[in-house]
Amino acid sequence: MTETKPETRARTFPYFEEQGSEDVVNARMGPEVSPRLREVMTAVVKHLHAAVKEIEPTHDEWMAAIKFLTETGHMCTDWRQEFILLSDTLGVSMLVDSINHRRPNGATENTILGPFYVPDAPRYPHGANICLDGKGEPSIVRGRVVDTEGRPIAGATIDVWQTNEDGFYDVQQKGVQPDFNLRGVFSSDADGRYWFRSVKPRHYPIPDDGPVGKMLGALGRHPNRAAHIHFIVTAPGFDPVITHIFTPDCPYLTEDAVFGVKESLIGDFRKVEDPEAIAESGIGEPFWRVGWDFTLARKAPGTVPDAPII
Amino acid sequence: MTETKPETRARTFPYFEEQGSEDVVNARMGPEVSPRLREVMTAVVKHLHAAVKEIEPTHDEWMAAIKFLTETGHMCTDWRQEFILLSDTLGVSMLVDSINHRRPNGATENTILGPFYVPDAPRYPHGANICLDGKGEPSIVRGRVVDTEGRPIAGATIDVWQTNEDGFYDVQQKGVQPDFNLRGVFSSDADGRYWFRSVKPRHYPIPDDGPVGKMLGALGRHPNRAAHIHFIVTAPGFDPVITHIFTPDCPYLTEDAVFGVKESLIGDFRKVEDPEAIAESGIGEPFWRVGWDFTLARKAPGTVPDAPII
Ligand SMILES: [Cu+2]
Ligand SMILES: [Fe+3]
Ligand SMILES: [Fe+3]
Repeated sequence: MTETKPETRARTFPYFEEQGSEDVVNARMGPEVSPRLREVMTAVVKHLHAAVKEIEPTHDEWMAAIKFLTETGHMCTDWRQEFILLSDTLGVSMLVDSINHRRPNGATENTILGPFYVPDAPRYPHGANICLDGKGEPSIVRGRVVDTEGRPIAGATIDVWQTNEDGFYDVQQKGVQPDFNLRGVFSSDADGRYWFRSVKPRHYPIPDDGPVGKMLGALGRHPNRAAHIHFIVTAPGFDPVITHIFTPDCPYLTEDAVFGVKESLIGDFRKVEDPEAIAESGIGEPFWRVGWDFTLARKAPGTVPDAPII
Repeated sequence: MTETKPETRARTFPYFEEQGSEDVVNARMGPEVSPRLREVMTAVVKHLHAAVKEIEPTHDEWMAAIKFLTETGHMCTDWRQEFILLSDTLGVSMLVDSINHRRPNGATENTILGPFYVPDAPRYPHGANICLDGKGEPSIVRGRVVDTEGRPIAGATIDVWQTNEDGFYDVQQKGVQPDFNLRGVFSSDADGRYWFRSVKPRHYPIPDDGPVGKMLGALGRHPNRAAHIHFIVTAPGFDPVITHIFTPDCPYLTEDAVFGVKESLIGDFRKVEDPEAIAESGIGEPFWRVGWDFTLARKAPGTVPDAPII
């Protein structure tokens, strides 16, 4: 009687075991994998397995996670990026930004770009008012662009954008706000100086009608960003700065939904109510005076000069 | 001259800092968050931030991750679950399964259910052939269902399903294979015995035309599952077992794409070519003899009796 037992395959890879599961998975990567992808996936699998081992999810909890990711994916369209919102609200976007913008002492800190930047805003001369509809509490923003030794940088480009007093960007209210309302591009003068007129920005919620909004709700968190003015400041030979300045009196200052606030980015906003100062300003009513200097770090040697930054 | 500086908000939460970023994020959870959600999210944020800090992704790499997750979400439909495939191929599904099925010594180990289970397959008497189209190398699968002391369990339900020799389940080839081809439900007899006829299963690829397939390609991995027969074995008062038995000679045995193979689940497949044995079997050609016992663990006291398992 013939009964042939087939050879069990020579063992080329380890079988799955709960202990060391991350190594079983990572051992499968082929020899041709790019070194950077190998490094990234090794870390992803390691921390993913560590998280699962710490959480010990039930099958239902695992399925809830699958469902959450699927709904987050289904919420994404050309004009809505729910995974970026997820990254923002879990502090990952700020963390990636921080890691990539460790500045030499004294340079203005970065914060996130946000989804409302529009290239090619109008170029204005010093002192122009970027508020095109006359709504809101007037402000005058004024300062200098300097290097880390405090020397003026002439001809720096200052690209600015912000919400109106209702907490909306022009692009969110097409037909309600004039196009390019509260956006403008300025250049620093020979002394590195810039100034412009605007209004005080207001806090606003990130889109919270999707899975990320539901997550924030379940975590007892609100969706509001602390009020801020966005800036991109660039000058040849210097690292660009993408940043905000925050109003110090916003109720959400210490609890910005996307963790964008850094202490060094809280602006010096002063209310001017003195009749003489008001008359001198030509504004005709009380206004906010904001003083803000940008300090740029020289590009590291060997950096591509002035590559597009966005 | 009056210039009033507004009060900076009292600091209720810490500002974002690269160091300790995970604590800044977790500190935002409200007091009413369910203890389990708090535990889960604390671990998720901790390991997510640890991964980002280890990887130090560039902005482009972060954006590639956002894009990958978005595409994975967009691939999901009612009949395709790309995030489950992602979980499977990163070993997470097996890890969750292992965590939830730590068995007392000697009980048959679990492995993943997979997407091809169909409830309410035909009930057959012992010895029935579940291969309805006569294709493939015949097999006889035979064994016992016993408790951890080796005592027979009578009336256990053995639900079985597998691919045909082309590596497809019936539900993947509607109109090509007969409905319920290679599926059946059996009961163990008074001695705990069961047996049925079938064919040798073949390896098959998981769906690899989506982002997960692309990921596997970039990692130098193939999408193939090692050949297996699926079983769900249940008996009143015992923990159900969801498992496979694997053929020992499959070229993918040690590199199952979803890490489903456990050493204890490799079957005892013997080729029978002896004319007398062939005649006795009534099969009329050489066949595979598979011996397989299922050992069930008694339910822990207090467990819901016989709750639905799927
Ligand atoms: Cu970790
Ligand atoms: Fe903004
Ligand atoms: Fe299968």
